[in-house]
Amino acid sequence: MTGENLALLRKEMKKRRIDVYVMSVTDYHASEYIGDHFKEIAFLTGFTGENSYVLVTQKDAFIWADGRYFLQCEREIAGSGFKMVKMGVEGQPKLEEKIKEELKTGMTLGFDGKLTSEADCRKYEEIARNNGSKVKIEYNLIDPLWKDRPELPAKKVWIVPPKYSGKTVKNKLRDILDELKSKGSDAFLLTSLYDIAWLLNLRGNDIPNVPVFMSYMYITRRKAVLYIQDKALDTKIKAYLKKNQITVKKYEQIYKDLPKEKAESVILDANIVNAALVRLLPRKTRLIEGRNMTEVKKAIKNDTEIKNTKKAHIEDGVAVTKFIHYIKTYIGKEELDEMDAADILLLYRKEREHFLDVSFDTIAAYRANAAMMHYSATPDNFAVLKPEGFLLVDSGGHYMEGTTDITRTIALGPLTDREREAYTLTLKAYLRLLDAKFLKGASGIGLDILARGVMWERGLDYRCGTGHGVGHINNVHEGPNGFRYKADPAYPVEPLVPGMITTDEPGLYYDGELGVRIESELLCVEDERTEYGQFLRFENLTYAPLEPEAIIVEMLDDHEKELVNEYHEKCRKVLGPYLTDEENEWLKKETAPI
Amino acid sequence: MTGENLALLRKEMKKRRIDVYVMSVTDYHASEYIGDHFKEIAFLTGFTGENSYVLVTQKDAFIWADGRYFLQCEREIAGSGFKMVKMGVEGQPKLEEKIKEELKTGMTLGFDGKLTSEADCRKYEEIARNNGSKVKIEYNLIDPLWKDRPELPAKKVWIVPPKYSGKTVKNKLRDILDELKSKGSDAFLLTSLYDIAWLLNLRGNDIPNVPVFMSYMYITRRKAVLYIQDKALDTKIKAYLKKNQITVKKYEQIYKDLPKEKAESVILDANIVNAALVRLLPRKTRLIEGRNMTEVKKAIKNDTEIKNTKKAHIEDGVAVTKFIHYIKTYIGKEELDEMDAADILLLYRKEREHFLDVSFDTIAAYRANAAMMHYSATPDNFAVLKPEGFLLVDSGGHYMEGTTDITRTIALGPLTDREREAYTLTLKAYLRLLDAKFLKGASGIGLDILARGVMWERGLDYRCGTGHGVGHINNVHEGPNGFRYKADPAYPVEPLVPGMITTDEPGLYYDGELGVRIESELLCVEDERTEYGQFLRFENLTYAPLEPEAIIVEMLDDHEKELVNEYHEKCRKVLGPYLTDEENEWLKKETAPI
Repeated sequence: MTGENLALLRKEMKKRRIDVYVMSVTDYHASEYIGDHFKEIAFLTGFTGENSYVLVTQKDAFIWADGRYFLQCEREIAGSGFKMVKMGVEGQPKLEEKIKEELKTGMTLGFDGKLTSEADCRKYEEIARNNGSKVKIEYNLIDPLWKDRPELPAKKVWIVPPKYSGKTVKNKLRDILDELKSKGSDAFLLTSLYDIAWLLNLRGNDIPNVPVFMSYMYITRRKAVLYIQDKALDTKIKAYLKKNQITVKKYEQIYKDLPKEKAESVILDANIVNAALVRLLPRKTRLIEGRNMTEVKKAIKNDTEIKNTKKAHIEDGVAVTKFIHYIKTYIGKEELDEMDAADILLLYRKEREHFLDVSFDTIAAYRANAAMMHYSATPDNFAVLKPEGFLLVDSGGHYMEGTTDITRTIALGPLTDREREAYTLTLKAYLRLLDAKFLKGASGIGLDILARGVMWERGLDYRCGTGHGVGHINNVHEGPNGFRYKADPAYPVEPLVPGMITTDEPGLYYDGELGVRIESELLCVEDERTEYGQFLRFENLTYAPLEPEAIIVEMLDDHEKELVNEYHEKCRKVLGPYLTDEENEWLKKETAPI
Repeated sequence: MTGENLALLRKEMKKRRIDVYVMSVTDYHASEYIGDHFKEIAFLTGFTGENSYVLVTQKDAFIWADGRYFLQCEREIAGSGFKMVKMGVEGQPKLEEKIKEELKTGMTLGFDGKLTSEADCRKYEEIARNNGSKVKIEYNLIDPLWKDRPELPAKKVWIVPPKYSGKTVKNKLRDILDELKSKGSDAFLLTSLYDIAWLLNLRGNDIPNVPVFMSYMYITRRKAVLYIQDKALDTKIKAYLKKNQITVKKYEQIYKDLPKEKAESVILDANIVNAALVRLLPRKTRLIEGRNMTEVKKAIKNDTEIKNTKKAHIEDGVAVTKFIHYIKTYIGKEELDEMDAADILLLYRKEREHFLDVSFDTIAAYRANAAMMHYSATPDNFAVLKPEGFLLVDSGGHYMEGTTDITRTIALGPLTDREREAYTLTLKAYLRLLDAKFLKGASGIGLDILARGVMWERGLDYRCGTGHGVGHINNVHEGPNGFRYKADPAYPVEPLVPGMITTDEPGLYYDGELGVRIESELLCVEDERTEYGQFLRFENLTYAPLEPEAIIVEMLDDHEKELVNEYHEKCRKVLGPYLTDEENEWLKKETAPI
């Protein structure tokens, strides 16, 4: 990386009279993962990781990296003229603090309003107001410099058949209209790609591992308009949209249409809708802000989705179990590294019926590498597996039936006491959450401590949520039903309701030493109804053996042992029919009662 | 009660062309308890309970009562022309549903904007908008009818000396100004009586059991104006306010001043500030809404408040312990009823140093009466105590050093197995919460399940929060630090921080049979700091013996037994010096290790 791009950007800033320019890794839809077209920070700085910000002045240039990327970022930005700021490290400034510091009276802060959520834009404006400075949201300053910028992705859109979606577009739209009415609003501006895909029972391929497509929607009591690239549609999809009374317009047309819309009020999520769009709404339009109503509806899986998802989990569990058997059989006999592990697992997944793609890049992390929560082996940085210690494998797949996410930490041979203790604590945390029984009205915020408390009692923690909602042939991370102990101040807390699917994935991560995580997906279902109300519990959707040789049995109480043994019995029953005799023989031994 | 007042109200409604009129038990400040001046619903319907609404049309008249008041309400409204609606009972409409139903197109909904929060007002307007009807917030229709309406309370205000308040008004105001600036706002409209009392280190006596005074405040970057009744001020207080640069104006003057205020933006809590006030702000004023910043600051007790509160709890614990000894000694020997119990406890409290008043009406509930969570014995409805079963006593005091809230469930003689089981489960729940260790950032929502989970596992529940924040010589219920499993959608979840004091009061309530509750107050304090961050825990502030003869010891694990024994050892040590030899002898036996 040379500093050339930075120099060009600074020229551009001078030309536009912008003193401070900020950017973040995102697209026009606040997507978690992004297509190549949007990798502006990589173009500018060389850094290719996720979740990053950049701030540039004529004098300084900073890039924020989160914990998993410190080393990689340092390496990739060498020579680019950028200094790394370490997120979450004491003494290192946050983006907003840095803006406050750099944006002097009379200066102008610039950023691309299409690549900035309305909520972030307001924060920046607030800082500017307090500093006596200005904000400019009109210019993207990277575009003029980036000569070979990749095209906006526009892969073909495809239909999720009713036998997988379980609910027609018409019925979904009717629910939206009902909610519009009950909220006393005229219109709903929806820009989340995940929610649009769900609402229309359509999928695409514009973001790696997330089968969605570039689009916006504007829904009123009288019309539903889809803004989408023409290239993404074939005649079949066009007919399908027409049949469903969806008006189709060009992707960019929404920026011309919105100023002419006459809704008295519009519902939107200011944390997702980009600032450029919001500011195009007529001035007198009242904004009704909050979480997209589609987000909660999407999170509550319907009976068809649930039935299918269960099937997807069996398929996926078979692949993972075969993989574990393979690795355990050949470790020490074949030369295997972390990338091989991911490849072998992919081969097993590809053998399964209706497998579409992985739902995220497989994490196969050996020993100390597993302490990095989102570690990813690369050709110039990977570990060779030995017949000792743990291999942590966190992976998932998209199937026509649904999306999966599973982690197993596999013993490749002898384990240290610390490894076994970490595994057993993680197992206890995992079991305590999946065994929960709770009244309707409780939320993931309220249940998190069931798992995390096992760590907290010992002064430990795992520095991330205990679990997240999982999409249905959609983003593997979704929804308002995560298990975490800090509530998102931007949204009200959502209760858990039957049909929600959430991962249960506590872990322990000792820097430079080891990483353990156990992850299954939990379906929220009804339990008994008493005079106190409707109780709920979880059904474990995931089938793949735990690691009994990593368990310090004396640390478990009788009920916990019972939970392990019952689960393993289920695994043998459910997976058995799909396994070879040899695999079944192995599984039986592997899952002998503890 | 006759229907005369209702008939007069209906005449008044006709005169003002109001078709539907709604009222609720509140004052101009959304206070929890109210002075006699505000008891409009009692005047109109005869019903004297808390937490009630009324809806009147020319044809119908409804009054809502919550679970603890069904019988009382039925009795009190007899002949008034009102029908009772049971809150929280399936099939019974909520107030808003009833408004939707009654408010037909073209009709007008009326209510007193001064007695309705801005947030409620918006809900009513939304219903009206959707129904094609109108809203009138100008008229109080009770005032013209209520000839002998009590005066607005205006008791003398008094100063909390620095040795009890721990922080000067100037410093508190400086914090507010800092937050005003950091939020980029010019003004703060504060109408919560609790918060004003805290901010000014002043107390009053305008609400039974809550030492606050009728007032409003309007704070800008340049001035702090207190709107207060002149009668409430003596020369000393006037001088004190002047010294603290507080501008004093007449209580009602705020309604004339607000329209002239020129702030660009005003911070306010729309769930507390009344709608009449909000609508007087100039149209172009931007509202920055959310929880009053004073509320969180008030909830975090400073070192002086903590030191004093600890002293108040010892004084209060002595009174409660002497009371328990008395009751246990004389039960079966003297004729004692529930009201006697409350009286005796009050006598013991009055003996303690710096005791001011009870912090709420003492609940002394025998056997099945204790199943009503907020039961209150009255001269025409009380139970005589017998030497068997449980007496539940929930009470508290205001001392110059602070405010207390404590519940002990006392065995008056032999107990049934069900009673002992209920006590032991409650004890387990109580112990699990007070023994919590958690990372900074966790909230009361996240910790609630530690206590409640004990009940949920068994299909039980206690239908109320596990605990609430406690004021300092202020409302006994306060703050954002409650333990509960449902988050209040109106506010972001607040983390627990050192200095917050919250009650831990799980229970079990079997209708018509028994009620058990154990309540102590927990101070949030720092625990160890590890590489994962700062851990927090609780310090139990309350000292009064538990009820060992009610414990089924086999249901407790070793750690739980240890917690009970340690606590009792502390009680003996802390309370001992204040007890008579006889009391100490008894306490020693009562708290023998289990």
